[in-house]
Amino acid sequence: VEDEEASASAASSSASNRRETEESDGIAAVGFSERFLQLSSQRSPFCLGLDPSASLLAAWGLEDSVSGLQEFCDRVLGVALGMVGAVKAQSAFFERFGHQGVRILEEMLGAIRAEGVLAILDAKRGDVGSTMEAYAQAMLSPVGCSAVPLADAVTASPYLGVDALEPLFRLAGALGSYVFVVAASSNPEGLATQGAVGESGEKVVEGVCARIAHWAQATDSAESRGGAVGAVVGGTSPLAPVAIRRLEGVLVLAPGLGAQGGTPEQFLAALGAAKGRIIPVAARSVLRAGPDPARLTDALRAHIEMAWQLR
Amino acid sequence: VEDEEASASAASSSASNRRETEESDGIAAVGFSERFLQLSSQRSPFCLGLDPSASLLAAWGLEDSVSGLQEFCDRVLGVALGMVGAVKAQSAFFERFGHQGVRILEEMLGAIRAEGVLAILDAKRGDVGSTMEAYAQAMLSPVGCSAVPLADAVTASPYLGVDALEPLFRLAGALGSYVFVVAASSNPEGLATQGAVGESGEKVVEGVCARIAHWAQATDSAESRGGAVGAVVGGTSPLAPVAIRRLEGVLVLAPGLGAQGGTPEQFLAALGAAKGRIIPVAARSVLRAGPDPARLTDALRAHIEMAWQLR
Repeated sequence: VEDEEASASAASSSASNRRETEESDGIAAVGFSERFLQLSSQRSPFCLGLDPSASLLAAWGLEDSVSGLQEFCDRVLGVALGMVGAVKAQSAFFERFGHQGVRILEEMLGAIRAEGVLAILDAKRGDVGSTMEAYAQAMLSPVGCSAVPLADAVTASPYLGVDALEPLFRLAGALGSYVFVVAASSNPEGLATQGAVGESGEKVVEGVCARIAHWAQATDSAESRGGAVGAVVGGTSPLAPVAIRRLEGVLVLAPGLGAQGGTPEQFLAALGAAKGRIIPVAARSVLRAGPDPARLTDALRAHIEMAWQLR
Repeated sequence: VEDEEASASAASSSASNRRETEESDGIAAVGFSERFLQLSSQRSPFCLGLDPSASLLAAWGLEDSVSGLQEFCDRVLGVALGMVGAVKAQSAFFERFGHQGVRILEEMLGAIRAEGVLAILDAKRGDVGSTMEAYAQAMLSPVGCSAVPLADAVTASPYLGVDALEPLFRLAGALGSYVFVVAASSNPEGLATQGAVGESGEKVVEGVCARIAHWAQATDSAESRGGAVGAVVGGTSPLAPVAIRRLEGVLVLAPGLGAQGGTPEQFLAALGAAKGRIIPVAARSVLRAGPDPARLTDALRAHIEMAWQLR
């Protein structure tokens, strides 16, 4: 309980330091969900994926090293932070460089948040009990980290059960952060598990989404209006329409905008029931336009244009 | 292809540097599976879980800080490395301290391997495509890391499909390392997904185990005799017997020895079909005996005794 109080108070002082958004209507947005909806009305719901993969570093003429990683992120954010409302950093591409890469990841999340842009940490952690508690702290409030929360939102994986993620939901709720639980993925290998049928006669993905909706309600609070739990649903997953029906009122992080099968029309066909709550993500289809800042800006503009259609 | 060759050569030079085990019969064990079976015959199959949780640090009178974390690990390994054949480090408890905790994790994995003890990194990563490739490198061969592989084995999570983990299986195979894919967990929240029934009429856990067995065969090579892929099966999971039937010939990492429901008899009732290939793990039930080295040694001896019954 003491920890929760400490976290909640750290969260509220962090919230009061947060830069007011330009078109603030005087009523402070509270919690990730409200903040996203506000930024979305100003900058479109588009979320840029920060994926400093080895192949992108090479394509940009950068070294496959910690300094190349830092240079790539600095250049991308230099262009993007004035344009988009959210950036999703893919943890794997930072962890590739060991603890030094994790240091850069921490710095970049701080740099994104300092500009009033929402920072989503895509790490897909999932475990049980005290281990899950530790992952919750690792992703949102590491020991010794002065900037709390570390990220405005994180992703999590439910193979060990959505309910096993409770420590993460609770901490996110107290901090005004958000958790996107992976529900339906676009890759064909995921179907065998996600499409299997449980004892209740429902598909696994339906059960996962029902529990996500439950936890969204359970975490709806003064710190997190609208709740602290949503879903990752691939815009091109065959299970997307089934998933979306169960995700009333929650935010839906949808990777793949601008990629194969990722036109706004195709996103709406699959995810239409969540229109206004969709956060479409694109990484490679934007980043491969770099390193030239003008071309990168054009690619960002094109994706922001597409994303407006999902509001 | 060049990367694979580079990795394979790094792996073989690392293998030649590896300390000869005391009772070596003159035939070098190649790959994690053979090395485990050899160490298991000398020290029992017991694997100590290195779980420096906040509550254990407090119980040991240590600060909840990076130096407390390091002190805890140093003391545990100081006692354990002369007694056990394998140590499983839980990544979450290091990631709690941000990049500085990850630095300690890297040091500890190195310290374990330097003593000829098998280091298992429990990180349960799971993603797709180039992201999964990046996680494979992060866990086994980070850029700029001179000690390759970083760990002798790692864990992974299959919600996005066992086959999506292929980049990790391939890298582990080339390096003589091993991947334990989470199949059946002991926590009740995991049953809804793991026990659901897929199109083939099989449970999800059966499909997962069938693909694990497939990849074990596909990675059986000169660098990784017996294959590079096995499973995590909770010794107290109700799905354990169903899982084990599909896991012929692979290693089974089984958490919970010495915990509630974790007697050797109970483990054998659930996992008996894998007798000789079971790696029983205990963390808290050993570590709570510390910090007194004599008590810690006694607790380790008791668990090693129990583990002999699983050979």
